[in-house]
Amino acid sequence: MSTPRISRRGLLGGGAAAAGVAGAFAVGRTTAAAAADASGPTAYAFRGEHQAGIVTPAQDRLHLAAFDVTTDDRDELVSLLRDWTEAAERMTRAEPAGVVGPVEGDPLLPPDDTGEAIGLPASGLTITFGFGPSLFDDRFGLADRRPAALRTLPHFPADALDPARSNGDLCVQACADDPQVAVHAVRNLARIAFGRAAVRWSQLGFGRTSSTSTTQDTPRNLFGFKDGTANVKAEETAALAEHVWVGHNDDAAAAWLVGGSYLCARRINMTIEVWDRQPLVDQELFVGRTKGEGGPLSGGGEFDEPDFDAVTGTSPSVPVDAHVRLVHPDFHGGARMLRRGYNFVDGSDDRGGLNAGLFFIAYVRDPDTHFIPIQNAMARSDALMEYLKTTGSALFAVPPGTADGEYVGQALFT
Amino acid sequence: MSTPRISRRGLLGGGAAAAGVAGAFAVGRTTAAAAADASGPTAYAFRGEHQAGIVTPAQDRLHLAAFDVTTDDRDELVSLLRDWTEAAERMTRAEPAGVVGPVEGDPLLPPDDTGEAIGLPASGLTITFGFGPSLFDDRFGLADRRPAALRTLPHFPADALDPARSNGDLCVQACADDPQVAVHAVRNLARIAFGRAAVRWSQLGFGRTSSTSTTQDTPRNLFGFKDGTANVKAEETAALAEHVWVGHNDDAAAAWLVGGSYLCARRINMTIEVWDRQPLVDQELFVGRTKGEGGPLSGGGEFDEPDFDAVTGTSPSVPVDAHVRLVHPDFHGGARMLRRGYNFVDGSDDRGGLNAGLFFIAYVRDPDTHFIPIQNAMARSDALMEYLKTTGSALFAVPPGTADGEYVGQALFT
Repeated sequence: MSTPRISRRGLLGGGAAAAGVAGAFAVGRTTAAAAADASGPTAYAFRGEHQAGIVTPAQDRLHLAAFDVTTDDRDELVSLLRDWTEAAERMTRAEPAGVVGPVEGDPLLPPDDTGEAIGLPASGLTITFGFGPSLFDDRFGLADRRPAALRTLPHFPADALDPARSNGDLCVQACADDPQVAVHAVRNLARIAFGRAAVRWSQLGFGRTSSTSTTQDTPRNLFGFKDGTANVKAEETAALAEHVWVGHNDDAAAAWLVGGSYLCARRINMTIEVWDRQPLVDQELFVGRTKGEGGPLSGGGEFDEPDFDAVTGTSPSVPVDAHVRLVHPDFHGGARMLRRGYNFVDGSDDRGGLNAGLFFIAYVRDPDTHFIPIQNAMARSDALMEYLKTTGSALFAVPPGTADGEYVGQALFT
Repeated sequence: MSTPRISRRGLLGGGAAAAGVAGAFAVGRTTAAAAADASGPTAYAFRGEHQAGIVTPAQDRLHLAAFDVTTDDRDELVSLLRDWTEAAERMTRAEPAGVVGPVEGDPLLPPDDTGEAIGLPASGLTITFGFGPSLFDDRFGLADRRPAALRTLPHFPADALDPARSNGDLCVQACADDPQVAVHAVRNLARIAFGRAAVRWSQLGFGRTSSTSTTQDTPRNLFGFKDGTANVKAEETAALAEHVWVGHNDDAAAAWLVGGSYLCARRINMTIEVWDRQPLVDQELFVGRTKGEGGPLSGGGEFDEPDFDAVTGTSPSVPVDAHVRLVHPDFHGGARMLRRGYNFVDGSDDRGGLNAGLFFIAYVRDPDTHFIPIQNAMARSDALMEYLKTTGSALFAVPPGTADGEYVGQALFT
């Protein structure tokens, strides 16, 4: 990154811009940055041991896009990843996607930034890149570098997948507290990819449904319930090593993925109009938690562990088909996930209702142990399934963080 | 409104809930409310001379839904408007949609609030109701109350309308600074409508593209340009009376609409990938303003008036097909609009790009003088049209504000 950088702030003519941007935490408009300072940093470093956007405290908004690579040239794929790395690092600093910016340079040329984020602060933007199973076909000479676990996700019971909302060669997860900043990031990465990769599908999420840090409140999904209470959190270093980060001895073919993770994505439509007509007691029995506080039906508060042996009358307090029981680590060899899902509404459906639900994202060390068995148990038996229809599905290997001077995923190509 | 009200805040067990909710500005969680107090009120009164959500300083997020009435019974339509009025007033106070709430009452009954907004503050929520031309057919005995201007919008040049994204008997515009709050509002109004009206189409907007108050910065659309600079603003009382609010002598058939307005909605897809490849100078010539500051090409800053007689070399400084010229009040008998549009991204299109653009909303006193001619001029001649495709269109009459004890639009039925 030896290219000069122009802060978006400079476009506003603020005097502080002339002083330069000293670090990742010193960007953004004064007023917005000052407001954000009270609750946390406004910018996250793009480079580090792990990619940002996994354990980063879940931002409020999501724009995730999957891409198909449209060239068969390995060098062009590498050049795309180089260009994406540079642009992503700039944008997470609230700088324009390109070195010239949206309104500078030669007016006879197209700007190298699209401009809709002029003046907006970094807004906690993270950009996280992943590689889909199809990238490891015969186009780029990567077949022998494919981790065994990186396969197209199986068809789970009751899946109703739309191929146009599933899979992809590459993915870009942009999270930010301002959706305009997340959209700007994906849009500019798509622009940079022109001729090398094209958007296959794209999903906006308007509200986070998980906490990834103990500093965050637990949000609610569109069933009205708290979600992700038992999530692996950024502060649990040992649990992250055990359940989220790929380890040194996990897969001989995938040394390039050590320190990375797997992103499991599922677009789960909720039939919310039917759900809304269920009695409260049934809703709670389906989930296995109370709707108000989110405590397990066996008693206690939100963060108390469910007691699966407890009985109410002659029945288990947490029913045998309750969601919280079926996906609990106790029944899956202790496997936990780091969930990072978002609520979505994509217009209306053909039943006079909303096309709405949960865009589920989980980061796991191994989908074969930490996602597929749990998803199978849920799809087969979960009482919630009556109100769910999964319409999209994808798995990506997320390489580790990018060191100075490197591009994202570089170890895969060397 | 004699029913007891339960604040969403009460569910959190906060001591302040026991003190009751004294007024529209005293709701929400303490921390969020305190944070919001610095920048403005967190709740707007539902009742007043005009409906909220028109001149209200444009909130950051939109969820707008059009409904088809599914009953032919006029009394059921009236009962729906009564129920919607009560629920809307509650929700704009950060109270549950129903008097019982999401987790109280008889657990053997479905909750009368869906719960995903538990604990969230009012977030500046406004809910604005409108009536489409089709409501005035022969079903409800309203044919002779239809204002002459309330007709299905004409097919403009280059329109590519999707009927499933156009028109409707009723509309609900929910704006808030938290999208979860806006979605919650529309979803609960749809739930209440069950058996009486069903969602026809629904649109989320992630970022405002207009300011409706002089206290707000001018935001940017997905062309990267500032939008709505010359908007009618809340502070311009005389201009509002002249251009936005329906007056006493406007239409003999529509006395019920006096103090209301017309909502013109257009879903305008932008071919942003093509736009992004245009030279900066061309982008600016198409718009007629600079991209950075937003000043007219004839010179001056954002809020200086364009000089349409100015020349640069031998050409008009603001080209004859520039957007700012074609829609300027000078060429439309002085007509101005109050714009309230939002950027949207609805996944991807079939060209490897984003399904993105501007959900245009304008409030005008008379669409025949303040919208249709301007839209025709734009559709016929505007240089921007090469990058636009309008895929949805609707017109609604927005009744005036609701007085105490009344329901929204009551004058239409009495």
